[in-house]
Amino acid sequence: MRFIEKLLDITKKNNSLLCVGLDTDTEKIPEFLLKENDPIFSFNKSIIDATSDLVCAYKPNLAFYEAQGLKGWESLKKTCEYIPKHIPIILDAKRGDIGNTSRMYAKAIFDDLKGDAVTVSPYLGEDSISPFLAYEDKCAFILCLTSNKGAEDFQLQKIDNRPLYELVAEKILQWNEKGNCGLVVGATYPEQLKKIREIVGKLPILIPGIGAQKGDVEKTIKYGTDDQGNLAAINSSRGIIYASSEKDFADAARAKAKELRDTINSFRKK
Amino acid sequence: MRFIEKLLDITKKNNSLLCVGLDTDTEKIPEFLLKENDPIFSFNKSIIDATSDLVCAYKPNLAFYEAQGLKGWESLKKTCEYIPKHIPIILDAKRGDIGNTSRMYAKAIFDDLKGDAVTVSPYLGEDSISPFLAYEDKCAFILCLTSNKGAEDFQLQKIDNRPLYELVAEKILQWNEKGNCGLVVGATYPEQLKKIREIVGKLPILIPGIGAQKGDVEKTIKYGTDDQGNLAAINSSRGIIYASSEKDFADAARAKAKELRDTINSFRKK
Repeated sequence: MRFIEKLLDITKKNNSLLCVGLDTDTEKIPEFLLKENDPIFSFNKSIIDATSDLVCAYKPNLAFYEAQGLKGWESLKKTCEYIPKHIPIILDAKRGDIGNTSRMYAKAIFDDLKGDAVTVSPYLGEDSISPFLAYEDKCAFILCLTSNKGAEDFQLQKIDNRPLYELVAEKILQWNEKGNCGLVVGATYPEQLKKIREIVGKLPILIPGIGAQKGDVEKTIKYGTDDQGNLAAINSSRGIIYASSEKDFADAARAKAKELRDTINSFRKK
Repeated sequence: MRFIEKLLDITKKNNSLLCVGLDTDTEKIPEFLLKENDPIFSFNKSIIDATSDLVCAYKPNLAFYEAQGLKGWESLKKTCEYIPKHIPIILDAKRGDIGNTSRMYAKAIFDDLKGDAVTVSPYLGEDSISPFLAYEDKCAFILCLTSNKGAEDFQLQKIDNRPLYELVAEKILQWNEKGNCGLVVGATYPEQLKKIREIVGKLPILIPGIGAQKGDVEKTIKYGTDDQGNLAAINSSRGIIYASSEKDFADAARAKAKELRDTINSFRKK
């Protein structure tokens, strides 16, 4: 099944545009879990069990696993295996290199970890992205406009009277020959998100930045979804998974996930 | 010891600007090694033993290890531990994300793998790079102008009458407050390399692209080194490590490394 169909199916089934980010950090998970054999996986397992009927995707953030070395990579792999097959796994990796190297990253993400999608950086241009796009049923979410202050350094700079991120959005639309490109656009720039949605039409957009980073939910949903109120994955990580640091962490995460899913739905086009 | 001193020391000791890229691929290493318990590490160990008096750095390319999953991450870790302590390890990872995520990538690269330097992507701007620069004795080689065709898509586009890569070079110079920034510039663009060296003065430049990618060696050395003929790490990967696929692969790699080191030296400023 193609990624975009898988995303639309789960969006409908769970009535949700909520993507839960698994930025799992041993310094932030409940202390009692640290006694377990694999605390990171135990934590993720509980979060997944508590939220799998509320989400449209899970987004493990590779940095947090790599920071734990070998053990972390193992926790990541177990997490990917554990996520129910009908829920898309977006591996947040921000990869991108020359062709023969990107091919290896694609192999790691899609063949070894069995992700459904990956985030990639556009700086090296088309031939750095195409090895990911060779996997027709997968999706590459290409960074367009990020939620951080540093986006001003280059992404907002103007090329031929339009900002670099608009040129990136136009290129992504051209690269979408197999229908497996997506974009990453931060919720902290709602007006720009609107413009980007106009440029890319029905491509899926992964939108981080509404939780800890304070993006505006209403505008994000209004401007970020397509004309049917779909094809956006609104990510929240810390605000959900660390809702409580006590024994009730999974229930607390479920409550936060439900609340945010419903808030998002209240602003969706019908 | 600061990275730049470590690089200058080994450049002098080994009379070398040659960086050997460890893009180790189970499909390309000699077949007889596949019987070993850890073929990737066995291959790297032999290459390192055969070339450690000829190089200024080793550059493991993370994609190739990640593509092998858990086993690959283990081979990478063993390789980093095996490289003699006086030789800089440049971990080619092209990472870069918002601040709290980049901090985790920096932890993986510098604390877990014990790299001396890392390659990072500039697309997310200053706050995506600063967590790497917080490690004062390490170095972040930031992508400036890459050797592939896709560099035309964005890097060569003009912002205020100068190409994006020049703006990136200027920003890198500003970010170099602790003296631990470097740049990645492909050998396939010698004239642009010259301009970039003028902009950044004494920052170290990692230069891939002279082997399989056909960059011009003479111009690369002339334009890429600083005014003393130093502070450039000229990378070759495939051309050296896969010089032979037989039992003599390490000797063949040594011969190719020596030849390239000497060719590079023949063009260096005295």
